Amino acid sequence: MSSISGGTMQDWPLLVWKLIDHAASFHGTREVVSLTCEGPEHRSNWADVRSRAKKVAASLRRLGMSPGDRIATLAWNTYRHVESWYGISGMGGVAHTINPRLFEDQIVYIANHAEDRVLFFDITFVPLIEKLRPRFETIEHFVLLTDRAHMPAETTLNLLCYEELLAAESDEAPWTEIPETAPAGLCYTSGTTGNPKGVQYSHRSNVLHAMAANMTDVFAMTAQTVVLPIAPMFHANAWSVPYTAAASGAKLVLNGPNFDAPTLQALIIKEEVDLALAVPTVWLTMLQHLEKTGTRLGKLNRTGIGGSAVPRSMIEAYDKLGVRVLQLWGMTEMSPLGTIGTPTPEIAAKTYEEQLNWRVKQGRGLFGVEMKIVDDAGEELPRDGKTFGRLLVRGPWVVASYFKGDGASAFDGEGWFDTGDVATLDALGYMQIVDRSKDVIKSGGEWISSIDLENTAVGAPGVAEAAVIGVHHPKWDERPLLLIRAKAGEAPSRESVLAYLDGKIAKWWMPDDVLIVEDLPHTATGKLLKTELRDRYKDYKLPTS
Amino acid sequence: MSSISGGTMQDWPLLVWKLIDHAASFHGTREVVSLTCEGPEHRSNWADVRSRAKKVAASLRRLGMSPGDRIATLAWNTYRHVESWYGISGMGGVAHTINPRLFEDQIVYIANHAEDRVLFFDITFVPLIEKLRPRFETIEHFVLLTDRAHMPAETTLNLLCYEELLAAESDEAPWTEIPETAPAGLCYTSGTTGNPKGVQYSHRSNVLHAMAANMTDVFAMTAQTVVLPIAPMFHANAWSVPYTAAASGAKLVLNGPNFDAPTLQALIIKEEVDLALAVPTVWLTMLQHLEKTGTRLGKLNRTGIGGSAVPRSMIEAYDKLGVRVLQLWGMTEMSPLGTIGTPTPEIAAKTYEEQLNWRVKQGRGLFGVEMKIVDDAGEELPRDGKTFGRLLVRGPWVVASYFKGDGASAFDGEGWFDTGDVATLDALGYMQIVDRSKDVIKSGGEWISSIDLENTAVGAPGVAEAAVIGVHHPKWDERPLLLIRAKAGEAPSRESVLAYLDGKIAKWWMPDDVLIVEDLPHTATGKLLKTELRDRYKDYKLPTS
Repeated sequence: MSSISGGTMQDWPLLVWKLIDHAASFHGTREVVSLTCEGPEHRSNWADVRSRAKKVAASLRRLGMSPGDRIATLAWNTYRHVESWYGISGMGGVAHTINPRLFEDQIVYIANHAEDRVLFFDITFVPLIEKLRPRFETIEHFVLLTDRAHMPAETTLNLLCYEELLAAESDEAPWTEIPETAPAGLCYTSGTTGNPKGVQYSHRSNVLHAMAANMTDVFAMTAQTVVLPIAPMFHANAWSVPYTAAASGAKLVLNGPNFDAPTLQALIIKEEVDLALAVPTVWLTMLQHLEKTGTRLGKLNRTGIGGSAVPRSMIEAYDKLGVRVLQLWGMTEMSPLGTIGTPTPEIAAKTYEEQLNWRVKQGRGLFGVEMKIVDDAGEELPRDGKTFGRLLVRGPWVVASYFKGDGASAFDGEGWFDTGDVATLDALGYMQIVDRSKDVIKSGGEWISSIDLENTAVGAPGVAEAAVIGVHHPKWDERPLLLIRAKAGEAPSRESVLAYLDGKIAKWWMPDDVLIVEDLPHTATGKLLKTELRDRYKDYKLPTS
Repeated sequence: MSSISGGTMQDWPLLVWKLIDHAASFHGTREVVSLTCEGPEHRSNWADVRSRAKKVAASLRRLGMSPGDRIATLAWNTYRHVESWYGISGMGGVAHTINPRLFEDQIVYIANHAEDRVLFFDITFVPLIEKLRPRFETIEHFVLLTDRAHMPAETTLNLLCYEELLAAESDEAPWTEIPETAPAGLCYTSGTTGNPKGVQYSHRSNVLHAMAANMTDVFAMTAQTVVLPIAPMFHANAWSVPYTAAASGAKLVLNGPNFDAPTLQALIIKEEVDLALAVPTVWLTMLQHLEKTGTRLGKLNRTGIGGSAVPRSMIEAYDKLGVRVLQLWGMTEMSPLGTIGTPTPEIAAKTYEEQLNWRVKQGRGLFGVEMKIVDDAGEELPRDGKTFGRLLVRGPWVVASYFKGDGASAFDGEGWFDTGDVATLDALGYMQIVDRSKDVIKSGGEWISSIDLENTAVGAPGVAEAAVIGVHHPKWDERPLLLIRAKAGEAPSRESVLAYLDGKIAKWWMPDDVLIVEDLPHTATGKLLKTELRDRYKDYKLPTS
């Protein structure tokens, strides 16, 4: 290594408050528009968000908080939540976003596990927090994200009023200077097995992720973009939009506690939103609303959709509305972005129908995300678009260890994180998720995708929902069992479903049995709870056994 | 700071070879097309560039090179130069790009000052290197960037053949793992005073710069972009295009040693280039060619122009051709990008004529570039678009110290680099260069821009070129002296020029004298050499004294 003195570049740590400093300095008048829990719409701008975030930082210091302390938020996407985020990390704290859709036991577990010292929350959650209060072991201060007029008249909580805290502070104290590897945020996974595990984002990982997410093949935000992150801030950083919008000077629109299609549509049209990001469910509901009312989405021309696979029919339907679907894939453990489905020239040159075969894939890696697929022995598998393997990832915004050392088995010791997904990679760089590793059915040494089977089975007449699990088989080790919930008033049968599947899937993928069930179990976030199904059917004897 | 074990993100150092790994992994088939010094066009792709860069790294190791060693290149923009760049930094070396347009003494000075151990150079430069060979003190190996067929039959140099070096190596050895703050590149400024000073780019600064440069309001490259960096790699990293193109998977087109308008135009049309980057001179020559031939530029729709201010008339002329001019400002010391002129919504909402008032400014800071203007006492000045001050910058791709500690006076001790420019900042975040600090005329405590005066005076009838310097004045300290070189066959006078200026500039800016001169001195890179003018006229007595 060179020992010559001189010849260095500046030491400018990647700290998240530099994003809001940039926005205030070069895009100070650009709007931040927010629906609120209290009712009225609120209009502010990046300079104001920064000024108030400084006051949040000052008030936390006054409450005795120190760098590294976890400060929780239980809040919708509002301007106060964005201010709190920047204020918490700006004083060196760790913004722990709690997902209000978790079960109550999980909320209590993660607040105690994180050792949260302060909780910022929306007025929506006063009854919930009153109920859980006795079970919180470490929270010293409860800050209600509202003004004096909206503080509850009677409550068992000893509440601080957010606006009063801010009013007592100035915006002049500098941000806290800390190393870029210091933690800035904390988000727990909503795992289907065991307790949630905490992913602690660093300042560095958040800034690098925001820079990568803003590349032109990803979110492509500019100073002229108007972005609506319907994806909640409590779910993997709202896909980093409060950071990416600040980095580019985009106008930020926030939907507060409102997720119904008419409110979102009105907001998109009124604020001239051109980019909005949400999970498929939101876009499916919106599509039904648009079809029912014969209305459209104003200037919206792009949606980022992630969280689960986007059906081909949804991509086509939005194309017809002039809205381009960008499929994203990521995980809480990846800050969250891993891949994006924007076309390469090879794909852009194909026919529309052929392009859809790639647009249903999860996409190609962002710069900064390395990916490989491996077999059970850890050997790398070919990138042929057919072979599946466990998907491992590596990169500067990928988790290296869970909070307090939980879940160590997800790390391979060579710097790779095991996503828990089974996927293919193809020659054009596209990744497609095939299944969760624990849900894939291992039949005679070959793997069968439970998700592929479910997606096909759900098309059979009378089928509302389908779940596939592997059950023990004496010869093949595991074979698929298909569980069907019928549409109301319809009565699909074992035979009708199997007849439907025949010819649509490989012969050896055919389920060994089909059961029609009353209901299927789900997680708090709406995913099929296959652990429970496997438990329920662990002794099930297949007719082929 | 938190002392909890666990809860970290991955340590994934920002190393420039990760850019080429990304390109090869996700965009391996995307083309890299190059004109060559030998004649024929060469077509390759990102996977091939990476493979051959690995071989460059291996051959340097075989030659005994170690991390931190400077390996010089004296070369045009070709595929071999790009391979060499990645190969040199990929083995931990420092790619020292030498500008062949420097005076011979400067080339010798910087090669010796950098202690270059190897020199890679194009066949164009064989006579130059033969001549300078006896003066190089540290170069151990001369590698000619060509194949055996193009090696000179007779030469005084003990030459290695690039293609033979590569043919002896495999692409399998891993890249060298080094800290991200390790140096990756070295580029000397072509300063107008004193010896050139070296700026040593780190891996981290190059990667962060590439990520910022690829934001959508900057280069906005995607996998479908076809980019031609006419800006040479020996001049501040070719504005980082060999890095940004790899990060986005763009097709990279290289013009080799050719800078004439017909060749560039043909290349742009044939390769379907949509983005090209160069200094104003190139675009002016191109414009004259297009006007003369009545031809156009194919699919080109954007040009990045930097290096000196872009005239309003050039922006208008390219708009009429359907080519949007993006004005850029930067410095060797800034890797080089500082600002970009893409419009904010406030500016986009103005009339075309009004927009031009901002489009002639240098632009707003990229995320990662902090800017302020200060007076001679270091006090920050208002951002009102009128007040000028010395422009200071800060950021992760801004120099902290010159190579071997040269030029320490450019650093203020608080982390800011003094650009040596005088500029305004306005309320919309736009910066405009007014002058170089040493050229500004300090008249009675107020500053007069020599550049503004020159730009106005050059419009006077019969004037080919204008230079303004400050000369001593007993009352005002300094007053402007205007030097005029006449157009061939024309005879502007002191009086005709002053009459032209009257009413176009503030009264107190009027030059105290005008001299018609035979010629004006220039630097190797074509800038006015004002140090020499100031020296020549240091005892000049103004008529107003």
